[in-house]
Amino acid sequence: MAQIRNPEAHRNAGASASSRNRRDREHMIEPLSVALPDPFLLYRGGVLHQARIAYESWGELNAKRDNAILLFTGLSPPAHAAATASDPSPGWWERIVGPGLAIDTRHYFVVCVNSLGSCFGSTGAASINPATGERYRLDFPEVAVEDIARAGYETMRALGVEQLDSVIGASLGGMSVLAFATQFPKAAKRLISISGSPAASPFAIALRSVQREAILRDPDWQAGQYASDNPPRSGLRVARKLGTITYRSAAEWRARFGREPIAGNTHTMSPFAPHFAVEGYLESQAERFTRVFDANCYLYLSNAMDRFDLAEHGGSYAAALAEVTARVLVIGVESDMLFAIAEQASIAVAFEHNATPTRFARLPSLEGHDSFLVDIPRFDAEIRSFLA
Amino acid sequence: MAQIRNPEAHRNAGASASSRNRRDREHMIEPLSVALPDPFLLYRGGVLHQARIAYESWGELNAKRDNAILLFTGLSPPAHAAATASDPSPGWWERIVGPGLAIDTRHYFVVCVNSLGSCFGSTGAASINPATGERYRLDFPEVAVEDIARAGYETMRALGVEQLDSVIGASLGGMSVLAFATQFPKAAKRLISISGSPAASPFAIALRSVQREAILRDPDWQAGQYASDNPPRSGLRVARKLGTITYRSAAEWRARFGREPIAGNTHTMSPFAPHFAVEGYLESQAERFTRVFDANCYLYLSNAMDRFDLAEHGGSYAAALAEVTARVLVIGVESDMLFAIAEQASIAVAFEHNATPTRFARLPSLEGHDSFLVDIPRFDAEIRSFLA
Repeated sequence: MAQIRNPEAHRNAGASASSRNRRDREHMIEPLSVALPDPFLLYRGGVLHQARIAYESWGELNAKRDNAILLFTGLSPPAHAAATASDPSPGWWERIVGPGLAIDTRHYFVVCVNSLGSCFGSTGAASINPATGERYRLDFPEVAVEDIARAGYETMRALGVEQLDSVIGASLGGMSVLAFATQFPKAAKRLISISGSPAASPFAIALRSVQREAILRDPDWQAGQYASDNPPRSGLRVARKLGTITYRSAAEWRARFGREPIAGNTHTMSPFAPHFAVEGYLESQAERFTRVFDANCYLYLSNAMDRFDLAEHGGSYAAALAEVTARVLVIGVESDMLFAIAEQASIAVAFEHNATPTRFARLPSLEGHDSFLVDIPRFDAEIRSFLA
Repeated sequence: MAQIRNPEAHRNAGASASSRNRRDREHMIEPLSVALPDPFLLYRGGVLHQARIAYESWGELNAKRDNAILLFTGLSPPAHAAATASDPSPGWWERIVGPGLAIDTRHYFVVCVNSLGSCFGSTGAASINPATGERYRLDFPEVAVEDIARAGYETMRALGVEQLDSVIGASLGGMSVLAFATQFPKAAKRLISISGSPAASPFAIALRSVQREAILRDPDWQAGQYASDNPPRSGLRVARKLGTITYRSAAEWRARFGREPIAGNTHTMSPFAPHFAVEGYLESQAERFTRVFDANCYLYLSNAMDRFDLAEHGGSYAAALAEVTARVLVIGVESDMLFAIAEQASIAVAFEHNATPTRFARLPSLEGHDSFLVDIPRFDAEIRSFLA
């Protein structure tokens, strides 16, 4: 697939062959990236210099430059939404983004960005601060969802796109779509906000607060100054396991795991060793995550989700979205405990208040917050029909 | 109020005045206790010697010794369900247990036991192992809900009661009522199982597994060998905060906390310091808990809840309860995320399968798993009417 680049879009030249090999083993190919405007002023008052956004793309930009789709991710994925020529490993939305799929790369130029503040090629707390030559760590300024959204738009502009066909995202990405809409209300023809929220609920805040505390209280966190080969793995493991629990639903797990014991004999281990299959699943999820995600970046993005409040833009959700000219699809899942469907309903109500053409799809998927990754037939149908 | 004691029921004689004063400040008066049969053989194969159960009581045993109610607690409370002459501080069910209340101590002799394996006077991992003179710590044998139930019954027998009027419990206590019923199916006239489960769900197991891991990975846990003045506080804090989240409901917190900021100015602290009121609430809950609860005891009781499966007794829930001669009240709460109402429904179905007279109360309380502590009017009405 052809990839459109501007002169600033290039592979990071600093990586040695050995570090590239190491990353390859984690399916972390050095990503393409663009430079953000310098200085890049942040929503809560900070400033970044020489900041970059990593992205991947599929399909081709047409001559009118009006077939681009910008894709925002959730908290943890990289920009690798689907396989590419340079990284053929399956992406996190492999069954949604591709030729003939719901987001059809035969027709659209699809760009997925790694969120500002993350650690998969975009500038974040684990990146080198050009002012010091050291990692930012806690010197990184506060990142807001508004910044993630604007950095995504700047990525598209760097790729030669001013006017977007669609902006799409789920979870944190669903919040990012709203932050995009309020800041650039006329920059896209269509918006799809999936399993997002106009403002984090106290329940979600409480859960993320505990996840952060698990990291902050890990002695290996070292007030954020941990060495890259000695990160706060225990804290990150606990945080990820808790996340994994809240991304699914009790009903799904009842059907999927029941009370099956874990594979293999564990009764000779500690009395508190994992015993049930569901514990083995959490183990594998946490193991994978702690290998690739930076703890400080996690803290920054987790915080950004808590602090996001669409009503800061004009006093109400409806006021924040008053200038939007796009058609809108809002998708929520009834079994989502982390981003309750009432939150997606309130997004739809806010758009409708402004007479914005809005479809609210209330899906009965069983897989909770993660349904967009799992219940492909329902999401395929909604997205395909909306983009048709 | 008169208290019935057998010769073995006495206050622990070893406590010095200063330790008693210290405990008074935590509302942890030295409790009454009884000796369990020695040896006390455990359900999963272990054995305890010189084990004791702490209890509190209200009301008087009548001459026929047929007005006794046995009360099992959840995971964390002591036997202090209501104020007593020796400890006038409010108990955890102060508005349910008392003269004229739903569990009317003018008519019943009510005994609440501290669960076997806990740390408020009953024998548990923090107790002295008589074989070594040291705390048991991880040498404590595996405790099952069946053992908690049998230790409760043995407490009543030590107090001179063979035949009970009622056995009542919520949460772990609701499980204990079922474990009592299957082991002593004819020992009580009435059973009330509140917000319990016939077998932990994979969702609840996953949550408790993460709580345990937070403790196990705290370096201060020291493989269970921590000094009593240096417990794994960080792990216990995270565990308790997560518990607190799952004991309530997202809807209640939305109404109660919304996105209110925490009282006091925190913006000069770490960027990840608590910011929202809901985080302050979690803090206060965790702070209180870590002062009084032993980490190893927490691990043992948490494990016991995961492993409980009523179907071990005969192959099915119904078979386990086939011999029960009591009338039964099962209460569940629709907003309970930890012990889903489907679990209480399955308990009721099992009793009904045996033609046991059963009322299943499905309450619309907003406060989730903890509703029995908060939504007093609804619980008062159900319990009062059932016991009338």
